[in-house]
This record gives sequence, C-alpha cells and structure tokens, in this order.
Amino acid sequence: METVSENCAHGGVQGVYRHASAATGTDMTFSVYVPPKPSGAILWYLSGLTCTHANVTDKGEFRAVCAETGITFVAPDTSPRGEGVPDDPDGAYDFGLGAGFYVDATEEPFAANYRMWSYVTEELPALIAANFAVDAARQGITGHSMGGHGALTIGLTHSSRYRSVSAFAPIVAPSQVPWGLKALGGYLGNDEAAWRLHDAVALIEDGARLSAILVDQGADDQFLAGQLRPELLAEACADAGIDLTLRMQPGYDHSYYFVSTFMADHVRWHAERLG
Amino acid sequence: METVSENCAHGGVQGVYRHASAATGTDMTFSVYVPPKPSGAILWYLSGLTCTHANVTDKGEFRAVCAETGITFVAPDTSPRGEGVPDDPDGAYDFGLGAGFYVDATEEPFAANYRMWSYVTEELPALIAANFAVDAARQGITGHSMGGHGALTIGLTHSSRYRSVSAFAPIVAPSQVPWGLKALGGYLGNDEAAWRLHDAVALIEDGARLSAILVDQGADDQFLAGQLRPELLAEACADAGIDLTLRMQPGYDHSYYFVSTFMADHVRWHAERLG
Repeated sequence: METVSENCAHGGVQGVYRHASAATGTDMTFSVYVPPKPSGAILWYLSGLTCTHANVTDKGEFRAVCAETGITFVAPDTSPRGEGVPDDPDGAYDFGLGAGFYVDATEEPFAANYRMWSYVTEELPALIAANFAVDAARQGITGHSMGGHGALTIGLTHSSRYRSVSAFAPIVAPSQVPWGLKALGGYLGNDEAAWRLHDAVALIEDGARLSAILVDQGADDQFLAGQLRPELLAEACADAGIDLTLRMQPGYDHSYYFVSTFMADHVRWHAERLG
Repeated sequence: METVSENCAHGGVQGVYRHASAATGTDMTFSVYVPPKPSGAILWYLSGLTCTHANVTDKGEFRAVCAETGITFVAPDTSPRGEGVPDDPDGAYDFGLGAGFYVDATEEPFAANYRMWSYVTEELPALIAANFAVDAARQGITGHSMGGHGALTIGLTHSSRYRSVSAFAPIVAPSQVPWGLKALGGYLGNDEAAWRLHDAVALIEDGARLSAILVDQGADDQFLAGQLRPELLAEACADAGIDLTLRMQPGYDHSYYFVSTFMADHVRWHAERLG
C-alpha cells in the first residue's frame, strides 16, 4: 500500500492510498479518514456513477462529524482503471470506467477486471484491517446512487458483517431501471438469477433481511422516477418487516449538495449502531 | 446577472452566477450561499492562488455553519479570465490568471482587465446588494492565502464597511516575500507607495486600524516561512494595539483540509460581530 497523500483535517488525518489489487488486476486508489480519537468503527462509503474516491473526499463534509463520533471513513473507487481496462464501447458514463456497479462481472471483456464486489467486500476490507486500527466487528456501509445500490446489496448479503446500512438516493431495483438493465446485462449477461443477487428489492423478496435501513432521497432528484424508484424499496421493506426510514427531502437534487447536507445525519445514525 | 446553477444545500440555496464586469472588462463568475433564514449579514471569502469560486464552494464546508448562523457567503473569482486577458508570460501559477492579488493594475498589459480591487470592493458588492436580501451595513471579509492578503488589505482600508476581518494562512506582507514582490511589481510597477496600499503590514505601519483580527495558520504550511510570515503581522498588530488572535495550528498545511477544519470557527467569529 502506497501513500498518495496524508493531510491533517478536523484533528485527524485524511489519507489517499494506492495498491495493486488482485481482485481487479489494476492499481486501485481509495481514501481513508482517521478521526483524532478513532472508536474503531468503520463506515464504508460507496460512490456513484462517474465518481472516484475524490468526490466524497472533497465534497462529502463527513470529516467534522467523523471526528465528533470517532468513525473511520473509507471511500473506494467505483471501477478498475488504467491501460487495458475495457470501457463502455461508446464511452458512456453509465457503464465501464467509473461505473462498476459493485458486481463481479462474468461477461467478456469485463470479467478480468470488473470485480468490484470482491474488491469492496473482501480485498479492501482485509487491506484496511491490516493497515489501520479498526474493529472489523463494527462496520457500517452507505453510498450514493450506484453506491447506494452497492451499500444496500452488500449490506443485505452480508447482514452479519455490516451492522448498519444506509443510502443516499440509491438505485434500489437495478433490474427494473435503464441504468441497471444496461449494467447487469453488460456485466452478468442474461442470467437473471445472478441479477437478483445484485438488486436490493429482489434480495429482500428472496429473503434477505436487515433490522433497519436509513435512506435519504431528494424529492427534486432528476433521476428519481426513471432510475431510483425508492417506492419499490419501501414496498419490499414493508412486505418483509424491515424498518426502513425513507426521508423524501423537498427541493434536493442528486448532487453532492444533497449528500453533504444529510451526511452528518447518516454518520451519526451509523455511529449509534456501531458504538 | 445570469444564473449558472442553483442547488438546495443545508436548507438554503448554493448559487453560482455570471455577469459582464465593467471593472475587469470580462465575464466574471462567483458563488453565493443563501442560508435558510438569512440574517442579512454577508461574509466575503477571497480565494487563493490558482483558485476560482469553485474551490471553496466545493471544499470549504461553510454551508452548515452559515445555515446555523444566518450568514450569506459570497465567493468571487481570483482574476479576470477569458480570451484576450493577458497571463503570466511563462504561464506561472503565481501571476496573471488565477492570481489577481486584489489590486487594480497600473502596468501594461494588465491595467485593462486586472482590476480586482475595484471589482471586489465596488462592483460586486453593488451587484450583490441589488440581487440578494442582504444588509450592506453588516459585512465581514475573510480569505485564504492570497485571498487572506486581500481580506486584510481590504478590511484595513475599508474598516468602517467591513465590521469583521479574518484570514486563513494569509500573505501578510507581500512587499517582503517572493509571491508579493512578483505580483506588486508586475501589476503596480516600481511605485512603492502604491505597494504599501496593498500590504497589510505596511498599511498598519502607516496608520490603518482594526479592532480585532482572527488568523489561523497551519504550523506545517509549506509556504509559512517563505511567503506567509505571520510573525510580521503579529509585530505590526502589537505595535499598533490591534487585537490579533493568531492561532498556529500544529500539523496543518496550506490546503483546503486546513481551511475547512477552521471554517466553522471563522464563520461563527464573524457572525458574533455582524449580529
């Protein structure tokens, strides 16, 4: 693990690190904020389409509240990158680079590098545990948009590992919306059973459970009706008895102005559950 | 005035606007955050070398505390920009584009466009007063690095207009450091009397007064000894009876990680003085 940068911030250290990933076969960059008095608890933040670790690190406004609550905040990249990594054939923003969708691709030419599920759930947690003073028994996960999809599917799948799960404007049912249809088809092919493992609503329908989920959603989000559809998550959670707090936020869009506004609420929500 | 973007944030509106500036002869872009319950008080934030309005707007972490205190936060650009605007002949970062130093240039070829003193003290305040619900009797000014220089020189010169003045890692004595020697010489020529009007330490030596100044300075700032030299401001304030609070912050560098860490303290300090 190579240190790209470390800067004092809010009494702690905001670091950016790079390592050679076995999962993706590429170098991967991520950021970690270590607060001044770390409790050991970790909050994973998965980013959305087009983002790297840098968007939330620059604009997320999480450091003050992490310093207050002792949370260590980890932000991975959203896809493999580098020479030879295949991209969307048309260079579209919603597939390929910056758009890994937190799955292990099985389709060619993506299967070799696009293994973001394994990267985020296995390789990077092991690297963090080996290099930072964290308590693997106290992990929470959140994310924005495509990263909210990742947080929900990973949290639902590994519900004993992630003790708290939240999301900002998540894609809740990728099997039912254009972004998801393109991504799941492109990375996983036509195997709809595989798709259901990467769709939060389908996972809940198929029996996955969490005690509670917090979701904030901008009511004026330009992607609300076409791509995000939080009502599908609300229905699935109601049917399954999952305590979903879905807050529709009037006036808010899909940007980091929305994420940063509600970041402190999410970090505190995780801190309460992670101790 | 044209609206570039407006986004809900922390209960208020973060706007970015553009207008044709008479002072600079170019289009100028700036940002304004209007909190949910504006008190009318305005805080001007002047940015440092290489920055536009966007750096602090993205990374400054000022919106939560402005929402709490009712402060309207205005962030201008740091220089004229556009086709035909002369730049540093070598394209250096410390002169020309992104480096206006908040002076009205008298030297050619800069005199026509590089009129940032007039822009920041006259034209933009009039535009803000005409377009936002603000109280011109309650203005404070702050800034970072070159923008800290601007905040101090403007605050000292117009001490009845700006009721509160603070700075993050300011250039306090440009006549005595390389960045300032290049900029004052390049924009103002060899007229050292003109230089003294744009040097906070010289202004204080020549009789300018403020009741109080707050300065935060990273003790590990890479520019501390060579360009910033806060001890010169401390000496001048001590001699003049100005109540300077100079906080040396161990471990902090010159970046926005430093600025954002202490932003809330500065906004609250201004809010106390602006009512």
